[in-house]
Parts: sequence; C-alpha cells; structure tokens
Amino acid sequence: MQALRSGKGKKSVSKIAWHDLRAPELRALAAADALVIIPVGSTEQHGPHLPVQVDARLAAEVAIRAAAHIAEHQSVVVAPTLWCGLAEHHMAFGATITLDFATFHAVIRCVCASIQRHGFRRLALLNGHGGNIKALDVIAGELKQELGVRVVSATYWTVSSVAGAFREILDEQTGVAHACEAETSMMLALEPDLVEREEMLRVDGSRRNLSASGGLYRWKGFEEMTESGVIGVPAAASAEKGERLLAAAAEGVAEALVQEELWQP
Amino acid sequence: MQALRSGKGKKSVSKIAWHDLRAPELRALAAADALVIIPVGSTEQHGPHLPVQVDARLAAEVAIRAAAHIAEHQSVVVAPTLWCGLAEHHMAFGATITLDFATFHAVIRCVCASIQRHGFRRLALLNGHGGNIKALDVIAGELKQELGVRVVSATYWTVSSVAGAFREILDEQTGVAHACEAETSMMLALEPDLVEREEMLRVDGSRRNLSASGGLYRWKGFEEMTESGVIGVPAAASAEKGERLLAAAAEGVAEALVQEELWQP
Amino acid sequence: MQALRSGKGKKSVSKIAWHDLRAPELRALAAADALVIIPVGSTEQHGPHLPVQVDARLAAEVAIRAAAHIAEHQSVVVAPTLWCGLAEHHMAFGATITLDFATFHAVIRCVCASIQRHGFRRLALLNGHGGNIKALDVIAGELKQELGVRVVSATYWTVSSVAGAFREILDEQTGVAHACEAETSMMLALEPDLVEREEMLRVDGSRRNLSASGGLYRWKGFEEMTESGVIGVPAAASAEKGERLLAAAAEGVAEALVQEELWQP
Amino acid sequence: MQALRSGKGKKSVSKIAWHDLRAPELRALAAADALVIIPVGSTEQHGPHLPVQVDARLAAEVAIRAAAHIAEHQSVVVAPTLWCGLAEHHMAFGATITLDFATFHAVIRCVCASIQRHGFRRLALLNGHGGNIKALDVIAGELKQELGVRVVSATYWTVSSVAGAFREILDEQTGVAHACEAETSMMLALEPDLVEREEMLRVDGSRRNLSASGGLYRWKGFEEMTESGVIGVPAAASAEKGERLLAAAAEGVAEALVQEELWQP
Amino acid sequence: MQALRSGKGKKSVSKIAWHDLRAPELRALAAADALVIIPVGSTEQHGPHLPVQVDARLAAEVAIRAAAHIAEHQSVVVAPTLWCGLAEHHMAFGATITLDFATFHAVIRCVCASIQRHGFRRLALLNGHGGNIKALDVIAGELKQELGVRVVSATYWTVSSVAGAFREILDEQTGVAHACEAETSMMLALEPDLVEREEMLRVDGSRRNLSASGGLYRWKGFEEMTESGVIGVPAAASAEKGERLLAAAAEGVAEALVQEELWQP
Amino acid sequence: MQALRSGKGKKSVSKIAWHDLRAPELRALAAADALVIIPVGSTEQHGPHLPVQVDARLAAEVAIRAAAHIAEHQSVVVAPTLWCGLAEHHMAFGATITLDFATFHAVIRCVCASIQRHGFRRLALLNGHGGNIKALDVIAGELKQELGVRVVSATYWTVSSVAGAFREILDEQTGVAHACEAETSMMLALEPDLVEREEMLRVDGSRRNLSASGGLYRWKGFEEMTESGVIGVPAAASAEKGERLLAAAAEGVAEALVQEELWQP
Repeated sequence: MQALRSGKGKKSVSKIAWHDLRAPELRALAAADALVIIPVGSTEQHGPHLPVQVDARLAAEVAIRAAAHIAEHQSVVVAPTLWCGLAEHHMAFGATITLDFATFHAVIRCVCASIQRHGFRRLALLNGHGGNIKALDVIAGELKQELGVRVVSATYWTVSSVAGAFREILDEQTGVAHACEAETSMMLALEPDLVEREEMLRVDGSRRNLSASGGLYRWKGFEEMTESGVIGVPAAASAEKGERLLAAAAEGVAEALVQEELWQP
Repeated sequence: MQALRSGKGKKSVSKIAWHDLRAPELRALAAADALVIIPVGSTEQHGPHLPVQVDARLAAEVAIRAAAHIAEHQSVVVAPTLWCGLAEHHMAFGATITLDFATFHAVIRCVCASIQRHGFRRLALLNGHGGNIKALDVIAGELKQELGVRVVSATYWTVSSVAGAFREILDEQTGVAHACEAETSMMLALEPDLVEREEMLRVDGSRRNLSASGGLYRWKGFEEMTESGVIGVPAAASAEKGERLLAAAAEGVAEALVQEELWQP
Repeated sequence: MQALRSGKGKKSVSKIAWHDLRAPELRALAAADALVIIPVGSTEQHGPHLPVQVDARLAAEVAIRAAAHIAEHQSVVVAPTLWCGLAEHHMAFGATITLDFATFHAVIRCVCASIQRHGFRRLALLNGHGGNIKALDVIAGELKQELGVRVVSATYWTVSSVAGAFREILDEQTGVAHACEAETSMMLALEPDLVEREEMLRVDGSRRNLSASGGLYRWKGFEEMTESGVIGVPAAASAEKGERLLAAAAEGVAEALVQEELWQP
Repeated sequence: MQALRSGKGKKSVSKIAWHDLRAPELRALAAADALVIIPVGSTEQHGPHLPVQVDARLAAEVAIRAAAHIAEHQSVVVAPTLWCGLAEHHMAFGATITLDFATFHAVIRCVCASIQRHGFRRLALLNGHGGNIKALDVIAGELKQELGVRVVSATYWTVSSVAGAFREILDEQTGVAHACEAETSMMLALEPDLVEREEMLRVDGSRRNLSASGGLYRWKGFEEMTESGVIGVPAAASAEKGERLLAAAAEGVAEALVQEELWQP
Repeated sequence: MQALRSGKGKKSVSKIAWHDLRAPELRALAAADALVIIPVGSTEQHGPHLPVQVDARLAAEVAIRAAAHIAEHQSVVVAPTLWCGLAEHHMAFGATITLDFATFHAVIRCVCASIQRHGFRRLALLNGHGGNIKALDVIAGELKQELGVRVVSATYWTVSSVAGAFREILDEQTGVAHACEAETSMMLALEPDLVEREEMLRVDGSRRNLSASGGLYRWKGFEEMTESGVIGVPAAASAEKGERLLAAAAEGVAEALVQEELWQP
Repeated sequence: MQALRSGKGKKSVSKIAWHDLRAPELRALAAADALVIIPVGSTEQHGPHLPVQVDARLAAEVAIRAAAHIAEHQSVVVAPTLWCGLAEHHMAFGATITLDFATFHAVIRCVCASIQRHGFRRLALLNGHGGNIKALDVIAGELKQELGVRVVSATYWTVSSVAGAFREILDEQTGVAHACEAETSMMLALEPDLVEREEMLRVDGSRRNLSASGGLYRWKGFEEMTESGVIGVPAAASAEKGERLLAAAAEGVAEALVQEELWQP
C-alpha cells in the first residue's frame, strides 16, 4: 500500500521498507539488531499549489534515502509512515486530518511497543512536520518510562548538518517554513505532476502578524498568520534544488543516526 | 508518501487520492458532498512468501479502483490508508505491528472527526483485514453516538457480490483466508517482485486444530492454527486470477457504496 | 438478589449459582478448577409484549441449565448475570439501559480479573444479546493480552448444535431475531405472567428497510427497522416450544463448553 | 433474570421492578415523572455461613419493599441491581468480585445517563455495601457535573430512622457490621436455605486490631480485622428479627425518599 | 515557592519542609525511613472575610507543627501542599479552583509514586478540606492496589483527640464548618492582615435548608445552603482561640500519626 | 499556605496573589478582565547546594514581581504555583516529585477551566522548569480546542528581553542551566539560608556527554550528563547578581505579557 521507495524506482533500496519485506526477513533484521526508522508526517493543507501529502511524503523519502546510506554499513529498516500528526492549526483551511495528542501518543506507543516486542532495540522517529516536534519529544520521554526502550526523535531539517546544507542551497529562505521554497522544491523533484505551477508562482507566502511574541508561546491557527496557507517563497523553488535538498537531508540524517553514543543503554 | 494509485500508473485516477490533492480541491469535494472511502488494513506477517503490506495494500487498491468506478457518476475521494489495525494474533511470528482496541478506536475517531469537520457527510471504512471486522462495527456504532455521523464499514471480500465473484474465480478455496490463493494472486498482479515464488509453491497452508469450536469464539494466536503463518493454498495463485479478483472487488464495492439507502440520515 | 436458578424451583441446581454459594464453597470450586460461566445480557425494549429483562433472563437461564448438565461430569459455577450491555440501537424506544463500549470492556475485565485472582482458569462469557456479539469477541482478545487468561465467548443461539435444533423447533423463523417467536416462547415457558398475550398476538414484527445492504455494515437504530420494536413473529410462540428451545440451548451449550481443546493453554 | 420481587412472592408488587416491565409501561412511568431507585450492592465473601449475594440481595429487597410503600402515593420503579461494587478489601478471602473505582463510576454513569435520556428526573442509588458508601457520594457529585441530573445516594442502614429502628431490634450490636446479626437475620428471613446454621452458631466474628485509629483512615484488607471474614455476632440472628429489620428499613427508606426538598432542582 | 514554615518564622523547624531541603538531605531521610506528611487542601471561596487559601494554609500549618512534634522522636518530612482539591460545590461563588475526581486521583498517585520510588514507605495525606474527605479514602484504597504502598489519610479536625479539643475551645460551634469560628480564629492567628474584620463581624453564616436529609446524601452546591458562602459564626473568632486550636490540632495529629499499628505492613 | 509574595515582605503587592484574596475581590478582578498569571515549576533535585524548591520558587517570584509591574497599568492576579511538573529525568537523584504527561495536562486543564468559568479570559502559564517547556506548548494547543480559551505560555528565561539581560549579568554562563550561576544567584537573593555555601563553591557542574547529538532528540536521565546533579558554575553566583536577574526577569516578563496582540481573540 505504501510505496516507501524513492520516486525514481530504484529497486535496490526496496528491501529497506518494512512494508516490502516478508516475515522471515524482518525476523532476521531483528536478530541483526537493525535500526528501525519510523517516518512521522502529517496530512494537511499545503497552500494552493502543493498536495496535502507533503510532510508525510518527505519524511518517508528522507527516511528511505538515509536508510540506503546506513545500509552500506549496518542493518536498517524503515517502518510504514505515520501520515497523521498534530495539525489542528491547519484545520481552518480544510483538507487537513489531525489527531489529538492522546491519540498521537497512543499510536506511537503501540507501534514502538510492537517493534520492541519483536526484539528491535534502536528506534528513531523521523519527523517531517513542525507541529509534531515538541509532542514527539514529550512522547519519547513517556515511552522511556513505559517501554524502557531508547527512542530517538529527529526532525529532518533541524538535524544540524542538514540545517547547514539547506541554508546553502536555498535562495529566499534559510530553512523549512510551510509549503515554501524548500518543500516545493523537493516535491518538484519527487512528484512534479502534483505541483500546480501557476499557483506556485502566484501565491503570496508572506507572514502576517510579524510582531514578534518576544519569546512567548501562543497557539495560533495558521489562518492568523497567512491567508494563502503558505509561509515562504514557493516561486523560488526548483526541482534541481529539491534533489539537492533531499540528498543533503538523507546524508545528514544518516550520519546523525549512526552516532554510537545515541544508542548506549 | 502513500501511492494510493493503481499499480498500473493510470494517471487519470490519481485525483481520487486525498494525498494527491491540494487543499482547494479537497474543499471543493466537501462542497460537492463527495463520498470519502477510508481504507483500513493491517501490517502483519503473511507467511514466508508475501510481504507484510498485503492487507493494507489490497484495501487501498480496491478502494482506488472502486472509487474510479464511482467517480464516473458522483464525487468521491480516497483517504490515506490506515495501515495498522488489530493484529495481536499474528505477533508471535514477528514482523507484525498492532494497535490495542482503544487506540484503534481513537485513531479512527480522530480521522473521521477531521473529515466531518470539513463538511463531508458520507464516510466508508473499507477494510482488508479479518482481525478488524468486528472492531470496526463496534467503532462505527460508537462514532454514531460521539460524532452523529453516518459511518459505513465494509470488508471488501464479504460484500455480497464480491464474495460471489471470488467463489467463481478461485480454485482451491472459496474466500479469503490468510496469505492464501486469493491474496497471493492479487499481490502477484500488483507487486510481483515482492512475492517469493519458491516459498509460495512450497509453503504448507493447511489449518491445524480443525476440530470445529461449534460456534464458540475463542481468541487464538495464529500460531495455534498454522506453523507457516499461512492458511490456504498459495500454490494455486496466479497474476491473472489476481487481476480478475481485484476487478471484481472494485466493481462489487463500488456498487454497494452507491446504494442510496445507505446514506439516508 | 439474583435468582440464578431455573424458574421451576429445582433446588438441586441451586448450588451452581455463584450468588448462592458461600466463600468456602467458592474457594473449593477454584481449587477444583471449576469452569465459570458468566451470563451476559442486556436490558432493553422487547416490543409491547415482553418485559425488558429478556436477554439477561434467557442468558442466565441457559447458563444455569447448561451448568446443570456439566455438573454431572465436572465442577462448574455460574457467575451473576451482567444484565447491561451495548443497546444504544434500542434507546429510541425508551426502557433501555446501555453501556458504552469502554465501560462494557472495563466491567468485564474487572469481573474476569477478580475471578482469575481467585484461581479459576476457565471462563466462558455466555451471551444472550445480539448487540454484544462482536464486542465480546473484541474484549476476549484484549483480555488475553491484559490478563493472560483464556476467555471463551458464545452466544447461545449461534452455538452450532443449538442453531440446528432451533431451526427444527421454530415454525415461522429460523433463528433468534428480537422479541420474536423464539424469545417469546422461552419467556412464555419461564415467566408467563410477564408476557402480554394480546399484544403478542397483535404486534407487527415485520422488518422495514428490507433492501439488503449487500454485506456492508451500517449502524442502525432499531427504529429504522421496526415500528413496534419487534422483528419476528411473536404470535407463533408457545410455552411448549419455549421449553424445548431452552432444553436444546442448554444441551448444546453444555456440549460445546466441555470440548477439551477449548481450554488448552 | 433478576427476580426483583419480594421473597414472599407477592405478585402485587412485581410491577415495581424495571426488569418485569415492558417498554410501553416504562415510557409511561417516565412520563409520570416516576422516582427510580437503583439498588447497588456487592458480591463478596460473607463468612462461612452466608452466601456472597448478601449485599446485593438486601439492597434489592429493601428497594422493592420501599418502592411498594412509595407506590401507594406516587410513581416509582426499581432498576436492576448493580451487584458488583468496590470490594477489594475482601479479595483475600476468595469468592469476591470487585470493580476498580473508575469502572464503578463508569457503570453508574452509563446507567444513570440511560435512565435520564428516557426522561426520568429523580434517581436514587440505594446502597447495601459499606465499601461503596464514600465512592457513591463522590460519584453523585461527578454526575451532577457530567449529566446535570439530581442523583441521591443512601445506604439503607444509615438512613436516620432506619438506624434508630435497627438499634431497637438488634440484641448484640447496634448496626450493620459484616455477615453479622443484622445481615444474618435478614438472610434467614429471605433465603433460609442459603444460611449454613452450624457455621452461623460457631463462627467467631470478633474484630481484631481493636486499637482505635483515632480518626485516621487506613485502608485495611478485611483479613487484617477478622480471621473468619465475619464481624459481629451471627449467632444472635433470627428470621423473626430479620423480617422486622427489613420492614423497618423499607419504611425508613421510603419515608426518606419522598421528602420533597430532596428533588428540588 | 511554598513557605511551609510556621507563620511565626521559627527557623528551627524549617528543615521539616521538603521544599526547603536539598537532595542529599532528602536521600538521607528516605534512608532513615522518615514519615512523609502530604498536606492536601483546597483553593475556594471562604466567605467575604477570609482569603481563598484557608484550607490549604491550615492543612500545611498543622502538618508543619505536627511534624515538629514528631521530629523530636523520629524522622519526618512535610511535602509541598496540594492546594487544589474537589471544590465543585463552591464554584458558583467564583474564586474557587477545582479538580475533577480523576485528576485529583492522578495527581495524588503521581506524588505518592514519586515519593515511594525514592524509598519512603510511610505516607500520610493530611487533609484540610471537607470536600476531599471521602475522595481521599477512595484514593487511598486504589493506591494500595496500584502502588502496594501504605497510605494513611486524615482530616485534621476529625482526628479524635483534635475533635475533642476543638469542642472545648470553641464557643459557638463544636467543629469545623466553613469560614467559621474555628477557621477564622486560626487565620486570625496566622494571617491577621488577610482577614477582613468588618465582614467577619457582619456576615451571616446560618445554614439554609436545615431540614435534615435523614441520612441520605444529595450533592449540594454551597449556594443552596448559604447566601454568604459561610456556615458558622465567624464573629465568635479570635486569634487567641486560633493559636489554641492550631496547637491542639498539631498535637493530636502528631500523636495519631506515630501509632505503630498504623504502619504495619 | 503559599506565600506568593516577594521575599522582601512588600505588603503592597500582597493583593496580587490569588491565595491572599477573598472571593469578592476575585469576582471583581474577573469583572475587570484581569490577566491571570499561573506559575508552573517543578520540585526536583538541584544539586548538593540548593533546595528542591528552586524552579517553583523562582517561577512564583518572577510572576509576583512581573504582576507588580503590570498592576500599575491594568488588573492582574497570580494564581497559586503548580509546584510539580515533568521531572522524570531527575528521579535517579531522589528528592524529585514528578507527574506523568497525562496528569500534568489534566491538572492544568482543570485549573484553567476553573479560572475561565469565573469569567477570566486572559491566562498565562509562566514556567520556571526546562522539562515543562515543550509539554506546556502541547497543552496550550490542546486547551485551545477543549476550552476555547487563549492560554499563553512562557518560560521566564527564554522571553527575549530577559535572555538578553541575563547574558549581560552572568559571568560564567549565558543562560539558565540547572542549579547554575543564575539559579544559585537568585536563590542567594531570596533564600540565603537555604543555600549550602560550601557545596556551592565545591560542586562540579561540568556536563558530561558533551558530544553534540547533532540536532537529534534523545531523552536522557540527568545522571547521564552530570554526576553532581548540577550543570553550570554555581561558584560564580552572588546575591547581588540574583537580585539583578530577578528584576530583569520581572521587567521582561511584564513587558511581554502586556503586548496587546497576544490577547486578540
């Protein structure tokens, strides 16, 4: 169901996706102490030019590409993508599917507990959605208590080396905003048919309510910040940038996940 | 992320998948009172010859194909696939990811509630996993109270006309068991590279503990019933049968879902 | 409080009811590895002619009579009746008391856990209400995980041999519908004073919305299907049929519950 | 199933029990603003001489008898008995079935909510088990918020006039302890065949750990206080006292429940 | 944050408050099997003359003073005060902060579990709010099951010897009502600047709805019983009485908590 | 109980603390649309030299001082301090009291809901504990859905202007670590008697496991990072710095909270 393969159909990496594997193969991976990467995304409005799959699609793509790097040195497998996260702030635009926190926590607990029961000991939640970041850290803390398992979480664009590379590649912005130059570029590279070019060039992604909150946190509906549902400069996107961003993300995430200190008991 | 398109790359149906649509398109579908089909599967061991994606993959495939039929007459959209269900009975074989009932309920509630908040009024849970059948009916009843929304549930192979067609197509069995002639055939049609032929021909799918329970229900681990994880006759499978099964399932499900009485308030 | 004895006052079976036993007797039964039958019913409208107790009363009666058979060969005890189940679909008629699923689950878990803590190892939920069937199977699966205990569930009229016998005894219908020939007959045998004869003969129990759903499940309020709250032909009932039905149910359930394979670890 | 009738088979009161009524009768009672009495008991060890049904049986009996008094002046109905309460403190003796607090709360909420949805506005929980007293008051407070309904709770022997009458009738003790003179007497009146006379005369019901706690509360297993499971003097019991106790309880409860101030909004 | 010291600034007792201690000191107390007193209060309206802190302030004060007595003989420490309890019945007056029961239970469970994990084995919940009394006993029972820990609960004015002393000291009332002679006196002794004298002398604290409920429990909003939010005779209060009351409470509580029988396993 | 007043006994600000106010005063504040600041801290080990109250004490102090500034221009009140947060990562050192996330969420929901029910519309959670930061943001988002109320959260040292001022005042570190120069200085200013000077000068607060995680999140017990429980340079602390830090924090927080944009609906 879930084609956790790169969009370019590289057959060689297909054996990295949990969903493509057979039970004996997965039992062997558990016995080999394979690293399990669990992509976590969201299904939510991404402006008038991008499909709602963006955060889930990109988390899965980065996971598969990072795993391909890791697989050169050690056992690794990529779980199916959790395509639904915390996206209440996008609900006013329609098109969005969101969980409440308790359900998000419960799903991740069940998935991690199942994986752990099969003998895997290294789990990494690889996130592609801003609204999930804090919640995933809270959940990782709770799971440590409940399951006694080491669960690492990471958002691909905040991994240090990825953030650095993104700054170099991007023209109009310095990181990942929403339906922005970065996300649009990567989608152009992966799913060009799903990007609406006219809207991409026309949409206004400037952010309203720029007055800084001065370090306070105030939950905001996305509609308070942007009329179009976009924050950033989609018009600056290109497929070529997208390919470079994906390569950099995969490399950076792979490097980060193989740090030995991460997995000490 | 989730390629909810037919395996044959028919671009024309790609606009049926929620994940491939942009927010303005989904808002228009809500305004058009589109039917929403939500595929529900499982990620679990399917013997030595099939990948663990089977139940999720087939539910999604049938959903997309059925939606293609429906789209000729009315608005319809296919939500991303819930790839994780109730599969505790497969856990002993490894490879399986399961939710507990409360979490399964919570996820479906959040997904249905999100969709309803956007104005959709006709929701169909299309199931591809035996272990979900009873739970989905219980959940549909609870949602009626909680959300006041009409949620229909169906398991594709138990839709009456589908069941009839399957009986005609299949040689060795009359319905869907587990990693059986039917499921193996459909996977041969959709993902031939992921089917291990040698195991498919060799595996013993006979059912142990044949003594009938006489109508009692006793939760059983799958390992009590089969050593291989298979029940049925995979060796009888063929891609040609698989394609016929998929076509019959899509047609039967489409017919069933457009019954007007289903959606009366 | 709960007269779990046959309506005919047979003193000899009174020692089968948990409620009639003293603590030392119950401790001895646990030590003897007695089978525990837990009747599960419902309190809900049963048309204009039958009292709301029907599903609970009949589950308890069949349980006690089945236990009397079993007691000839092994230790057995019948727990007090859970008289409240999932009956939301009858609420529109008044008179009905229903639990939500989470509460139904919690009650059964607490009751089973208490019984297990005292050393009993064989538990059978004997159900007399259609609305509970799927939920009980889901719950039995969950309890297997939570308590590690073997819990069997059965609805008396779906036990294979019972279903066969019912078909032979009944004239106008082939199984148990609702407040129907079968249920009315059994109540005439057990509680003739509580059956309103005039209504029994007059009530229209034909089912509306006969258009088949084609194998789909759609939660329906009972008021969508019947104006009277009855489905079936109460006018065909008689006390004599009722006595035969009860005898057949008790015998069939007893036979089914003593199958050795059921209780293998 | 649940013979909520007086033990003496007085047919005239049978129409007071919810379980004996048909839906049209219960709808009429709701329309007549009938008082609903919900007996709440427990299923737990009651020493070597009494069956485990005592607390549920006596709550139901007092409810039915009190309702018979009330029925002379206003509409009233007695719900089926909640036969399971909070009895963890008796678990060490076996034979006991207990709920945890959250489940006890949930069951009472569902039962009260169902009754309220049918239009009843006056609900009284009539309790017969010491371990439920505080919990019922907590629950009544929660329900006031959740359901907005007036729920009164009472333990039959602590109703002021009942307490006074009991002091006059009893010889060896002044109230209700556990499996004591009072409870044994009432069971002798109602279910003489279920009382084991030899044990009744022999059992030691003196209380250990008499050192007062000085007003502190410390949860105690019953086994810390009594070796036999009895506190009180069963040997002082008689059926004649039992009948007087029941009559006094019914009268006192009936008087208390018809106070008009109780039911002011 | 929470000055758990006597209002008179006695530095000598400051080392009794958990909040004033450093980690090595608390680890030493755990090793010494110290008694842990956990004050539990409420934040709620206390009429026009008293601040809302009363129940929390007095529970903490009595705890600290009692601990000072106990500290002469054994190790003891006073946890920070749970200043929020069950006060729904005061909400109509504003100013009140309340928990629901499930949250109250969860907080106390977490606090007790944390303390137990550090090796403390004797925990006493010292309560200063009427609305918490029954709930605390229910919770103590639940914790016994969940944590396996001995948790004692006490409301300071119901400790037997305290109740006796209070009767002797007070003129107009014999115990603690609400914002009454007793509570006002103690607040005059501790926080004279926070007592509004004019209102104290003028307020009408007579109780409406005096008709006894005859032993029934009916949840009442405080506004049903008193227009002013006061029950009792604040005008009879004095700081001198307050100091005597506090001294008596501390002494009585200390005596009660050192009973050896309390802490037997 | 909870002396939410500045440590210097400035009587003039005492009327800012919810706990010191009487019900009529709080009702008047609600009518005046007062801002409500809710201090949130933690009770946890703070090395060998500081008491466990630090995070709760400092959050409360900053809240009261900030409120004093705000009170010059608009109505404001400071709720009692939530002294218990998420501190599982400190449990290995003893002395720590922690909640799980669900309980933390529930407590804050109940407190905010109570305040909102009284008519207050502007709520600010002012946090003083690193472990609470992400969780508070998650909770604020959930409350927006559940209560429809605007809840702002802030950690005092991350408010932009406060962070700037802290950098200028501190010598050895640039922000707030744990039991560090900043926290120790503020405690020296507020509670000099509770700071153990010898330990303060001697303790080693260097951080182990310095290897950066490269932007990944991995839940760590504090014992993995520091043997002493301290991170930072307590020896660099002084009361004079502490007073300046507190003044800067109060001023910065006050300025941030009065931004009008924060409270737009």
